[in-house]
Amino acid sequence: MLEQIRKKKHVEEKEFGFGNTGQKKRLLNTDGTFNVVRKGVSPFESFNPYNELLATSWNRFFGCVLLWYFSINLFFAGLYLVCGIENLRGVDPAEESGPFWEAFFFSAQTLSTVGYGRVSPSGILVNTIAAFEALVGVTSFALITGLVFGRFSKPVAKLMFSEKLLQSPYKKETALMFRVTNRMKSQLVNLSAQVSVSLALKGADGHSSRHFFSLSLERESIVFFPTSWTIVHPIDEGSPFYGMSESEFRASDPELLILIQGSDDSFSANVQVRYSYLENDTIWGAKWRKIIHVSEDGSSQLDMQNFNAYDRIGNA
Amino acid sequence: MLEQIRKKKHVEEKEFGFGNTGQKKRLLNTDGTFNVVRKGVSPFESFNPYNELLATSWNRFFGCVLLWYFSINLFFAGLYLVCGIENLRGVDPAEESGPFWEAFFFSAQTLSTVGYGRVSPSGILVNTIAAFEALVGVTSFALITGLVFGRFSKPVAKLMFSEKLLQSPYKKETALMFRVTNRMKSQLVNLSAQVSVSLALKGADGHSSRHFFSLSLERESIVFFPTSWTIVHPIDEGSPFYGMSESEFRASDPELLILIQGSDDSFSANVQVRYSYLENDTIWGAKWRKIIHVSEDGSSQLDMQNFNAYDRIGNA
Amino acid sequence: MLEQIRKKKHVEEKEFGFGNTGQKKRLLNTDGTFNVVRKGVSPFESFNPYNELLATSWNRFFGCVLLWYFSINLFFAGLYLVCGIENLRGVDPAEESGPFWEAFFFSAQTLSTVGYGRVSPSGILVNTIAAFEALVGVTSFALITGLVFGRFSKPVAKLMFSEKLLQSPYKKETALMFRVTNRMKSQLVNLSAQVSVSLALKGADGHSSRHFFSLSLERESIVFFPTSWTIVHPIDEGSPFYGMSESEFRASDPELLILIQGSDDSFSANVQVRYSYLENDTIWGAKWRKIIHVSEDGSSQLDMQNFNAYDRIGNA
Amino acid sequence: MLEQIRKKKHVEEKEFGFGNTGQKKRLLNTDGTFNVVRKGVSPFESFNPYNELLATSWNRFFGCVLLWYFSINLFFAGLYLVCGIENLRGVDPAEESGPFWEAFFFSAQTLSTVGYGRVSPSGILVNTIAAFEALVGVTSFALITGLVFGRFSKPVAKLMFSEKLLQSPYKKETALMFRVTNRMKSQLVNLSAQVSVSLALKGADGHSSRHFFSLSLERESIVFFPTSWTIVHPIDEGSPFYGMSESEFRASDPELLILIQGSDDSFSANVQVRYSYLENDTIWGAKWRKIIHVSEDGSSQLDMQNFNAYDRIGNA
Repeated sequence: MLEQIRKKKHVEEKEFGFGNTGQKKRLLNTDGTFNVVRKGVSPFESFNPYNELLATSWNRFFGCVLLWYFSINLFFAGLYLVCGIENLRGVDPAEESGPFWEAFFFSAQTLSTVGYGRVSPSGILVNTIAAFEALVGVTSFALITGLVFGRFSKPVAKLMFSEKLLQSPYKKETALMFRVTNRMKSQLVNLSAQVSVSLALKGADGHSSRHFFSLSLERESIVFFPTSWTIVHPIDEGSPFYGMSESEFRASDPELLILIQGSDDSFSANVQVRYSYLENDTIWGAKWRKIIHVSEDGSSQLDMQNFNAYDRIGNA
Repeated sequence: MLEQIRKKKHVEEKEFGFGNTGQKKRLLNTDGTFNVVRKGVSPFESFNPYNELLATSWNRFFGCVLLWYFSINLFFAGLYLVCGIENLRGVDPAEESGPFWEAFFFSAQTLSTVGYGRVSPSGILVNTIAAFEALVGVTSFALITGLVFGRFSKPVAKLMFSEKLLQSPYKKETALMFRVTNRMKSQLVNLSAQVSVSLALKGADGHSSRHFFSLSLERESIVFFPTSWTIVHPIDEGSPFYGMSESEFRASDPELLILIQGSDDSFSANVQVRYSYLENDTIWGAKWRKIIHVSEDGSSQLDMQNFNAYDRIGNA
Repeated sequence: MLEQIRKKKHVEEKEFGFGNTGQKKRLLNTDGTFNVVRKGVSPFESFNPYNELLATSWNRFFGCVLLWYFSINLFFAGLYLVCGIENLRGVDPAEESGPFWEAFFFSAQTLSTVGYGRVSPSGILVNTIAAFEALVGVTSFALITGLVFGRFSKPVAKLMFSEKLLQSPYKKETALMFRVTNRMKSQLVNLSAQVSVSLALKGADGHSSRHFFSLSLERESIVFFPTSWTIVHPIDEGSPFYGMSESEFRASDPELLILIQGSDDSFSANVQVRYSYLENDTIWGAKWRKIIHVSEDGSSQLDMQNFNAYDRIGNA
Repeated sequence: MLEQIRKKKHVEEKEFGFGNTGQKKRLLNTDGTFNVVRKGVSPFESFNPYNELLATSWNRFFGCVLLWYFSINLFFAGLYLVCGIENLRGVDPAEESGPFWEAFFFSAQTLSTVGYGRVSPSGILVNTIAAFEALVGVTSFALITGLVFGRFSKPVAKLMFSEKLLQSPYKKETALMFRVTNRMKSQLVNLSAQVSVSLALKGADGHSSRHFFSLSLERESIVFFPTSWTIVHPIDEGSPFYGMSESEFRASDPELLILIQGSDDSFSANVQVRYSYLENDTIWGAKWRKIIHVSEDGSSQLDMQNFNAYDRIGNA
């Protein structure tokens, strides 16, 4: 099979740094991350707290902020107790909460720079600790502000890919087709797509190994992206699938690797989305259902409920 | 008509994901948004509060901030009252405003971290609420800072398009011409323009459907953009309008779709502007009035008052 | 002259939106702004306070902050006085400064959220004003933070251009040469240069008008930019200057318009620098003095003191 | 040697602004900075505090913040003492710390806007100083926030280069090979590499000088970068090394200059990495050990512990 494909002169073999291994799991997860395990790297080495705090959900992010606030206050409350609660002026014996909580809430008032002043530090040591805690507070809020803005300003192209990849009639031949749409209101322009495929192919020696091929597209880029885009790989002489039957296609355990790039209007930034389709995402012999309609008033409508809808073809 | 255009070998047909529908409303609004209704999507799904707060006016933005400040204080004032006003030390019975307003303003002093301290929290519960409110305050101001910077740093290319699209004499033929200028003081460089047209054309079967064509330009990009740029589509053999009369042009219900991209100097960012012209924006047989003059001292002047001015041509 | 140049088949005429005017002043100032006056635009329309505050000096920026702080405090001090100084608790008759300054400093303590608490608001009206002033304070500091970061993060490519443009011997012909170096420590990579010239040329009708030509370069881009780059326009058959004598060159009142673009390492951003050379910046028949030396320890040295140094050639 | 290389028609000579000097030290350090000394520039001229504070370690950054906090407080404490400690109300004679520390901690409480209020300013002069100090505080924290976000948002492509450069068998010839991998979890896409070499070559006059050549690569760019990328320069007719023996190679004191560019997913930004290999980084006749394996569960593994491992070839 490999030899047959390599003979085709318009088919371009690719290299992703894997060599021709016999890897069986998907290479690219549907969230765009690569399915590669790194051995021999300590998790701390590649850990970047900024990236983690950028990527996590808002709930977890605020959870981290709350946890940090509590821990820092606990730490400073301990320090004030060790230095002696008598160095906090205004601690009221009538308060039933006791010295620990007085120290804890004094710490919270210092860290957040509220500083009501009922309790205030006394003596050089405790004053120094309180002055340092106030600096920790303002610096921490600088960090939080930086993180919040980082989370805000990260452009996220929420492209939605069709669940299935269809093999459809196309001109006089057939083609592989999937479609994408923009889940966000923000406008994307100048989109371009690059599609490759990873195939498990038996070589002349009878061993199966993975090979990568680039797939030509009917249209590699679009200027405007107002509705949805059907990306079409014609199965013609330039395709590694040319002449393959459905069973040969499925036996080659194909994984389509997709990279879509574009410009996001709201962020004036370039965005990238990766996705992949596997053999069991593929429907052989089907057509996408139309999702663009003209409404009664003459304007265009995109029917998102039929985004994943397709119709099987009788004699595919 | 469609067949005639398709026969021209230099005319390039385009695809924007609409198919050949009979849509009658404009596709691209003059503010650059697309005129497409999405059915079957809940408004919440595509709602992005960050984008909304970035795009809204400064008045509405500060209105939202004020509303948020009032609501949060109302909420915490309620909490303090529920916990018992006696847990706020320093509440003065002599204050005629009463417990609710005492709690409300204590909340405001805590949220903004002013913390005058006349009133201060007492007891573990109320102290905890106040410490949490101070954290809400600093975190909220981090969010506001992030939003403010996001609003500031979003490059907005305020390109001004001429109100009309002119059909003018050009070399030995005619051309469609519009002009753009920069409304801002900031400099734009490396501008490039892409122009397409959507036409309602009758096919061989007598049915009218929309088709998209790309329009070639006399000049697709300019390095410097100090004054104004007249963008010219020559109606020659490569144009879908070649050989069309004015009435045929108007009957085809044309919409010119324009994308201009460039680099903004002040933001070191790429900017994009979209615009469209309709049939009724088109003046057949007219010339732009000159807007560049040399003043007495030898320097160049751009006469913005004549930016939209044109002169009709006798025998157009 | 114009006819002669237009006959050369490799010379490319350009258009900057000026038409062929008789403008006599320089088009591009050495700070990169264009020397074009806009008539008929109100200054407010193109005024962008964010851009102004980004572009101004740090001294003026902090001056604006100080002025704002003083004005806001003055305004709120007035409000507090109008509402009655008796609504500020803790105002001390013993303070010789008097009610105005007490109100003013209370305002400053509120705006900056210091809130010592010696003076504190009383009554619903004054409490509301104080709560609003605290919000004005934190929101203003959000604006200042946004501006400060905007100022920081704006990549400024401080390219230094040689003071003079030299006409030097080059291979078997001559060439126009200028050099640029990086004034900052940050690294620039992937620099590219585009050079055009504006010439006042007499046409067949004997009238002089301005025409723009693009100038070909010996090397249009460089990958690394560790030292200095001598940009060379060979005066060969593709040059509008081919065959011009020095006096013809000077009579054509040339202005070289230069755009250099590159990537700044510290900001991961693209930067652009514009510059122009006039006739009186041109030295006819001179060579740049060498500024790269190898020091005794074998490393390379860039001798910045000779950056503008050149040597005249005897028989130029 | 130089003449022989120049005769090869596919070899492209390059220019980095050095001319053909006899420089003996490396041009590009392994951290990506250039090894060029600038003479005649005052260090202040090219000093950019923002860039320094961006590039320094977090420890030093927080050290600078702490130092700034201490110095400012020292300065304002001095001012308060000069104005007379009696202008700070609430200074307690019972506090053993004495007037200096009372003034110092009052300053810290003002700068950080904690403002407990036990001590508060009195009189116009001291009130003005305190109001100004509070403004200094909030503005400084705006600067710190800006710096913190600048540090966060600077995309750092931590590409790891193999320690050695190998001369390996390649097809029917040999090739120079090094490999790179991504140390971070963030994804890089659309990587491209440009490789040049600086060689000390004897010209026809017997003098040795440095010349730069661009090296062609088997593959100049990759779309995905999930694992590692082996960058291969085939030593064929287009290579300046074609026909060189190992001793000739080493005698030419080669320095490979590498620029890798790509798009970072987490920051939506372009990143650049520079690196260089010297003669003594080169192993003649060796092959990279395989680092991609398929684990038992069928997924791919990148064995980072063997990233620098190679095997010498018997008869190289």
